[in-house]
Amino acid sequence: MYNFSAGPAVLPKEVLAQAAAEMQDWHGSGMSVMEMSHRGPEFISIYKQAVADLRELLAVPENYKILFLQGGGLGENAIIPMNLVGLAAQQPATVDFVHTGSWSGKSIQEAAKYANVNVAASSKAARFTGVPPVAEWKLTPGAAYLHICTNETIDGVEFQQAPNVPAGTTIVADMSSHILSRVIDVSQYGVIFGGAQKNIGPAGLTLVIVREDLLGKALPICPSAFDWTIVAEHESMYNTPPTYGIYIAGLVFQWLKRQGGVAAMEQRNIEKAALLYAALDADDFYQNRVDPAYRSRMTIPFYLRDESLNDAFLAGAKQRGLLQLKGHKSVGGMRASIYNAMPIEGVQALVTYLNEFAGR
Amino acid sequence: MYNFSAGPAVLPKEVLAQAAAEMQDWHGSGMSVMEMSHRGPEFISIYKQAVADLRELLAVPENYKILFLQGGGLGENAIIPMNLVGLAAQQPATVDFVHTGSWSGKSIQEAAKYANVNVAASSKAARFTGVPPVAEWKLTPGAAYLHICTNETIDGVEFQQAPNVPAGTTIVADMSSHILSRVIDVSQYGVIFGGAQKNIGPAGLTLVIVREDLLGKALPICPSAFDWTIVAEHESMYNTPPTYGIYIAGLVFQWLKRQGGVAAMEQRNIEKAALLYAALDADDFYQNRVDPAYRSRMTIPFYLRDESLNDAFLAGAKQRGLLQLKGHKSVGGMRASIYNAMPIEGVQALVTYLNEFAGR
Repeated sequence: MYNFSAGPAVLPKEVLAQAAAEMQDWHGSGMSVMEMSHRGPEFISIYKQAVADLRELLAVPENYKILFLQGGGLGENAIIPMNLVGLAAQQPATVDFVHTGSWSGKSIQEAAKYANVNVAASSKAARFTGVPPVAEWKLTPGAAYLHICTNETIDGVEFQQAPNVPAGTTIVADMSSHILSRVIDVSQYGVIFGGAQKNIGPAGLTLVIVREDLLGKALPICPSAFDWTIVAEHESMYNTPPTYGIYIAGLVFQWLKRQGGVAAMEQRNIEKAALLYAALDADDFYQNRVDPAYRSRMTIPFYLRDESLNDAFLAGAKQRGLLQLKGHKSVGGMRASIYNAMPIEGVQALVTYLNEFAGR
Repeated sequence: MYNFSAGPAVLPKEVLAQAAAEMQDWHGSGMSVMEMSHRGPEFISIYKQAVADLRELLAVPENYKILFLQGGGLGENAIIPMNLVGLAAQQPATVDFVHTGSWSGKSIQEAAKYANVNVAASSKAARFTGVPPVAEWKLTPGAAYLHICTNETIDGVEFQQAPNVPAGTTIVADMSSHILSRVIDVSQYGVIFGGAQKNIGPAGLTLVIVREDLLGKALPICPSAFDWTIVAEHESMYNTPPTYGIYIAGLVFQWLKRQGGVAAMEQRNIEKAALLYAALDADDFYQNRVDPAYRSRMTIPFYLRDESLNDAFLAGAKQRGLLQLKGHKSVGGMRASIYNAMPIEGVQALVTYLNEFAGR
């Protein structure tokens, strides 16, 4: 069976097998990872290895902190302004956003509780089928930061590189649904964040990578458990972290290294996405509406020309072991999420079915 | 081996065995629980069963919502006032606290960000060895609520019943480290909350049980992901919940039901605690300083009369498979956490070692 869920999503089979084998006794410790004190030597070793592996995989510079938190992407939508609006040149602070789909839209709504929000650019009028050209973005001088969602999970729109904004602009990037799927230059961002449940591990773990000079500005109303400065000072152990999620994420990081790292993974993701888009584009039976320059390699929405066939399509898919292809309720249609852990055989099986169902 | 960690803590062996067996394929679904969409029928069934079982185990009345969140007890220390200070008769709101140890102390510090804090009673001068008599509590008329920690994990102080406060007082109880260990009358509380990692399941899952009439008062600065009203309206699915943690908690709830429920568990906990305190009290080799009327059944700190023997005690314990007995760094000494999942055999093994080490 192949699981195309948008998240929580497919995990590498080797990771699940190892987790099952170690569930009742981790490395002869007599404990499950779930039973370990987060301050004990066993869990500390798991934590340190996970941080080191992630730092290596993404080439995270030494002046960035890697934080493991709770609260998910939606939680971060509030936690980010509570930590960063103090960076603005003047108060009340303004935060710039580029609105490219559902997720950046949610971030905008939430940030408005803590700052003035300026939508510097929006593809809403174009039904979120691309990213407005950077030259047209109306950025605010002295804004606290610029927030972008570099892969819109629901809309299937992906930034193919960091936007070329004026020097000194602090970019905060929601990479929940494509982190570790492609090589990035971390130094082009002030903050990279994401929920783990798409390309990293289980739901309930949230990743924040933050440049150190951005710390120390949290609002007085920021809960201590979500104050990045406090979390960083305590190496993500200020409150009890989601230990089992960190363990699984660590197994995924090890698996990624065995696959050849992020660059090797990116090549496979290019290949997988090309295969799927070719099948969708072969004729007008299916449709993906995103500008090819911004099509996501990870989360690929598509529609049947004849939507009355949707139920039949999904039923046939399930019969063939192609699971969770239904699109997000807000946009309908279908969606195939082909994260790192989706093998090319899964995409091939989907393509075969797409062709078959289209009568090709 | 027996694991006396204060949390994350021991889980029932049957739960871990089932989790291992189901890790790669839950009930023939072809998916790990970690890979399931939180909106799919498989996970929804897991979630609904967990909520129903917890409602049954604690006899939670129908006018209380059971919420699964993220953020832990420390997160809730901020999230609670952000949700509840609007209940105060006048603004700025006052929140009453009873200070009985480290955890209520942390709650007091955090709440001061959002409200005036009144410490209605404190056992600090008595070095947190009991609970001040309720008749002496100086409660604030019109306070938003009264916050208590019904089991102080570090100090080993436990409320043996809900405090008899004036009618109309909304009690918010941090039950992190003894929930499900004894029968409680939920209707005596406005809110019961706790991190899961002591008596419920893995770290990263937070439980809130809230009376419905207390909802709808969140401050504008409350993050949507932590606004109980929004979370309740979306049945804990407003943001992606910690799905695997909910699954494990659900397995623990089923295990508790097989053990005879909370009343049966309470009898065993009484027996286990009596056995351990008897060994500690046998002579003055060991010392537990808590007033016997408030001694915790779950988290039992103790000191060696001769603290120069601490390292030898811990080394000998480890040799015998008695793990994680070191006390919290803030108070030193030893601590034995004997949660629901600690079998009586574990307590017996510890008692045997206590007697042996004391040369009895």
